Amino acid sequence: MPRVSEEHLERRRQQILDAARLCFARKGFHETSMQDVFAESELSAGAVYRYFKSKDEIIGALATQTTVSLRALMTELIRVDPLPPPDRLVESLAEHLVANSGPESPLRLVPQAWALALVDPEAAEYVKEAIRGIRDCWYEYTERMRDAGWLPADTDIHAVATAIMGVLPGFILQHLIIGDIDPQTLARGLRTLLPYGPAA
Amino acid sequence: MPRVSEEHLERRRQQILDAARLCFARKGFHETSMQDVFAESELSAGAVYRYFKSKDEIIGALATQTTVSLRALMTELIRVDPLPPPDRLVESLAEHLVANSGPESPLRLVPQAWALALVDPEAAEYVKEAIRGIRDCWYEYTERMRDAGWLPADTDIHAVATAIMGVLPGFILQHLIIGDIDPQTLARGLRTLLPYGPAA
Repeated sequence: MPRVSEEHLERRRQQILDAARLCFARKGFHETSMQDVFAESELSAGAVYRYFKSKDEIIGALATQTTVSLRALMTELIRVDPLPPPDRLVESLAEHLVANSGPESPLRLVPQAWALALVDPEAAEYVKEAIRGIRDCWYEYTERMRDAGWLPADTDIHAVATAIMGVLPGFILQHLIIGDIDPQTLARGLRTLLPYGPAA
Repeated sequence: MPRVSEEHLERRRQQILDAARLCFARKGFHETSMQDVFAESELSAGAVYRYFKSKDEIIGALATQTTVSLRALMTELIRVDPLPPPDRLVESLAEHLVANSGPESPLRLVPQAWALALVDPEAAEYVKEAIRGIRDCWYEYTERMRDAGWLPADTDIHAVATAIMGVLPGFILQHLIIGDIDPQTLARGLRTLLPYGPAA
């Protein structure tokens, strides 16, 4: 038998995740069955189960992918010199979220992952990890704001990070559910509230 | 036949909502069946359907109850003279949310309502209304912050409200999912970011 290459495995795995994402965006986590995923991916049950033991494992993989890209972008942005002020940083992050918010996008799965975390202890673990991961970036950014002299030397980093990080879920909810806000409006509001550094 | 009093109708309705809330908090929206609600409320199917045509109608009523109390409190707080600075306002709102966040509380339904809004057009309507209702309060508060001289005279009220309102969903998610933040920490962080008015 031919050896299955790493790339082949990764492609198959991604094919399943893409199919599942379509199903979830269309019907929601709970109403999507593994049968839907088999049909959408055009793979057999055996082929899918080789990669994911359950629907919850698929949800975990997708939720992780969503935050991984946001976290990677944020890590890059907050290490730039000179430090971008909050309005510039958040505008870039919100633009990234909007670019990923089409009808079949993983961003629409984010509120579903939040909801799932409250009823499923296993999901709670990886959703908690994902939120902590983003919050770690806010810790680092808050420290840099302090070091830039924008915040007092005795700033409580944890407290500030918990307060400022809400701007992203706030944007996600308004963007996905109300649909009347864009990254530029959000940035303008944040500039008024936190007018640090040079104006854009 | 005796006439059924208004109070009786309202009590029955609340009995159903209380039972549904218990079921939802335990199993989630999607996995709770109307049969679960009949059993938990100790009412017949006919009695329940007299008040709510579907599970979605029950969810709508519960989600509305949750935001109604938050909105009432916020409306009261933002009309006080002198105006409470953001850290005081948000601390009171967060304390209200925490007081309603036990294992069977309606606060745990809020992320479920957000998730539902993204897959169910009918739910999307009332969830949108609820989020807009809270945002209306932030509009009014932002205007008062401008009038108090804390924000510039030419402040874009919509933009600032969209940015600042994220502090509540941010708190809800961290409180329910990570579980390591309290209203006082949030208020301390907000005080550092928005040091308006007299210190507490």
